[in-house]
Parts: sequence; structure tokens; C-alpha cells
Amino acid sequence: MEDVNRRKLLAGIGCGIIGVTLSNMSIFASNAHAEKNKANSWPWPYEKLDPKHTAELAYNEWYRIFCGGAVISSIFSQLAEKIGEPYKSFPVDSFIVLEGGMAGWGTICGSLSGANIVSNVIIGPRIAGPDCENGHVIGSNIMDWYSNAKLPVYVPTNPKANKDKIIQTTSSSPLCHVSVGKWMQASGFALGSNERKDRCARVAASVAYKLVEDLNAWKDGKYNAEVVWNSAKEYGIPAQQNCTECHTNKVPEAPKMKKI
Amino acid sequence: MEDVNRRKLLAGIGCGIIGVTLSNMSIFASNAHAEKNKANSWPWPYEKLDPKHTAELAYNEWYRIFCGGAVISSIFSQLAEKIGEPYKSFPVDSFIVLEGGMAGWGTICGSLSGANIVSNVIIGPRIAGPDCENGHVIGSNIMDWYSNAKLPVYVPTNPKANKDKIIQTTSSSPLCHVSVGKWMQASGFALGSNERKDRCARVAASVAYKLVEDLNAWKDGKYNAEVVWNSAKEYGIPAQQNCTECHTNKVPEAPKMKKI
Repeated sequence: MEDVNRRKLLAGIGCGIIGVTLSNMSIFASNAHAEKNKANSWPWPYEKLDPKHTAELAYNEWYRIFCGGAVISSIFSQLAEKIGEPYKSFPVDSFIVLEGGMAGWGTICGSLSGANIVSNVIIGPRIAGPDCENGHVIGSNIMDWYSNAKLPVYVPTNPKANKDKIIQTTSSSPLCHVSVGKWMQASGFALGSNERKDRCARVAASVAYKLVEDLNAWKDGKYNAEVVWNSAKEYGIPAQQNCTECHTNKVPEAPKMKKI
Repeated sequence: MEDVNRRKLLAGIGCGIIGVTLSNMSIFASNAHAEKNKANSWPWPYEKLDPKHTAELAYNEWYRIFCGGAVISSIFSQLAEKIGEPYKSFPVDSFIVLEGGMAGWGTICGSLSGANIVSNVIIGPRIAGPDCENGHVIGSNIMDWYSNAKLPVYVPTNPKANKDKIIQTTSSSPLCHVSVGKWMQASGFALGSNERKDRCARVAASVAYKLVEDLNAWKDGKYNAEVVWNSAKEYGIPAQQNCTECHTNKVPEAPKMKKI
């Protein structure tokens, strides 16, 4: 987190194998290793994808491996076909566990977990060099976008439910429990209903669409955003944006660093 | 989620490549594919690990790739050395983004994200066959254990701070914000302090220790637990266990399925 702003200072140096700061050093020193283990060298090769086609894939994959798996599958399945490794060897289906806010516990929306995993796996971990920090930035900013959007945004070609219209709600939170809870409250549909399932499949599709737009911009060298929400810096604790929704007006203050 | 109980009925059939239900079918039909792509065939090969050694690795890795990355690295680095692929090609460092409840947003504790990813990547996604459901069960039950434990449990050999004693707190939640917030409130230490960093590194070590205990039991055929917390079934919405902590006494009721 603290290092994300180094990106500004060192932009353009590129990212490579962890521990090697300069990309051209990695070319000379670690080609053999990179050949043997493409998965731990960043960025992974990327070809621009069609957001709408990706969203359709995510919508349909939701009914097989749910939200987080669907977002990952919608992007990695296309790249595995276009490019091959290291995408082919990524165990996509294991990420079904992101469902329901991680195994049904209602924490982070699985679509957001999936988006963060995709952007950081493709672009790289923020410690792999300044350009790799875009993976972190894209992931974090999709959480901000999600929290403030009227979801779901994307309308699938052949929706399985909510065919005439669908209620859209703003979660003000990246949490599954809050996001799906507000939609269920506004729509009156139960968790087990076809309407709720279609809603969450559309959310996965909406996130996949947005993520591909951002990845395409990054590929074109046009993704130059900064992290929008940095709670640790502002409030001294990792947090989302809707403090009073849980704390009401009694928001506790985080302990401050003692002056020495 | 709904299918986890099938495990009881169909136990022992084994898990394989997605879409192939019987393990011996996968041996005949898909050997070539499995050879080419070991990463998408489950379970991944596993050798029992030493929980204490793993916890030490996790503690130290925290200072490089933080909580979620540290849990994954502590286990996959050992298995990459003992076994090789598919562990060697898993992009461990990308999972630094699990830090601070996903890129600092305070949602699920990264150590728990890491634990769920490890158990589901090794044992397999729950849809790959009844035995693979143990990945989901182990991950979910570690969230239950975490929420109710006095953390951190593990004491590292050479702690970087809190050398004389450390305050332990119970989060009653799998959320980073709640877990680290309660510890900061009880201890008075700020997010940026060496004491808080050591605390979270110890939490990662504690989770890695518990996870290896469970994986070793699974390897020995002795992990026979059921999912302890199934909120969707009990409350009709994905949720954690501490409803009144955010909702106070006004806990809303989830919409019910309409009777047809």
C-alpha cells in the first residue's frame, strides 16, 4: 500500500521477476528461469479482449462456478486459447470458493476477489516493479467503482430471469452481504430465487466488463489512475467507505503512532 | 454451498478433472490432458508438512508479501521444492493483493483468503467430485476457528516485536477491519507500529499452522468435518456470525422464497 506512489516516480521502468527491479536486468539474468517458469514473471502476456463477449462468458460461467470463478474464467479462458501458458495452468475452477463472499461467509463480493486476482496475476504484484503496481490500482479502483455503481450494470443477451426489468441498487460497500442484502431488500427476492441468481450473474458480468476495459487501457499504456481509496493513510486502519452504516455515529478513532 | 452434504453420500469416489465424476474414468479418458495440465486435475499431489516450520515461513514471508501471500507461500514454496509442478507455476507473489482485507479495503483477512485458496487449489473445487469438497470445508471451518480464537496463537522463534508479551483478541469476525481493529483498540498500537505488524505476521503464522494441521489430517484420511457455519441455509443470506455487532438489535430478515 505505502509504496503505490513510487509508481509516479519510477513509471516506465517495467516489471519482471520478483527481486529484480529493472526489466532489462531480468532479460539478461533470468531468461532461463523465465522460460521454465513463465507464471512467476510479470506482466503475463495479454491481448486485448472484447468487454461484451467477456461479460457474456462471465454471466454464463456464474451458473457453473459462481461469481469469483466466473470473472477469472471469463478472462483466463480466452487468454488460454489465444496465448496458452501460463494461463492454461492456472487452476481457475478452484476459485469457486470465492462465492458468497468466500465460501458463503458474506465477506468481499466474489466478483471483486476475482477481479483483484486477475489484475494482479496478469500485471504482477506491486513489489515486482513500478509498472506492476497497476495490478493493485486497477483491482482497488474496481472496488471503488463497484461500491458506488447502480448494480447490476450489464444486461446479458439472454437473461435467465428478470427479463423485463431488474432493480439496481448501490451497495456503498465491497461486501457480498451488504451488496446482495440491499438488492434483496429492494427487490423482495430470496437468495434461492432465479431472480437473485440472475442478479449476481449480471454483477459478475458487469465486473468482468469493467475489468477488461481497464486491462485494455493498461495494455494501450492509457491506464494512468491512482488508488482512489487509501483508508490506511486517511483513517489509520484498513476499511471500506461507509463507516456510519455499521458504527452509526460512534465511529472509533484508530490509535495513532506515538511520537518518539 | 448447497452441495456440500453430498460428500456424506458419495464419500470415497474421489475427485478428478472437472466434468468427470469418477476418478477411474479420468485415468482412462484424460491422462494426456492431465499430463499436459496437471494444474486443473485434483487433488494436487500433497506431502505432509511440519506445521511449526510452515508457521515460521509464514511469519517471515509476511514482511515480504503480507498476510495472504505469506500463507500461500509458506505452503506452496515447500511443496514446489518437494514435489515441483504444479506448485512451481502458481503465481504466489501476485497474491500480495490479499493484504489488508484485499488491497487495504479491510474486507476478509488476507490470511483467511490465502487459506481458502490453498485448500481449494490443493484439494480441488467442490464441483470436481465429493472428496474435493474437503477444500471448501477446511477453508470455511478455518474462518470459524479464526473468528472464535484468541489471536494471535502462534509465537514465532524470533519475534520482531511484542517480545515479552502480546495481547490476544477475539475478532468474532473473519474481516480484517474488525480483527485488526479490535486488537489495535485493546493494545493501543497504531497500524504503522512494529507491534501491529508483528501481530498480523503472527496471525498469518497461526492460520498457516492450523491449515497444515488440517491438510495433514486430510492426507491421512482423517479430516471428516462438516461445514460448521452455513449462513445461507440458516439465515437466507451469506453472512458472518456477529449480526448485532453492526445491526445492533435491528437485524433485518432476509426475503423468503415465495410459496407457489
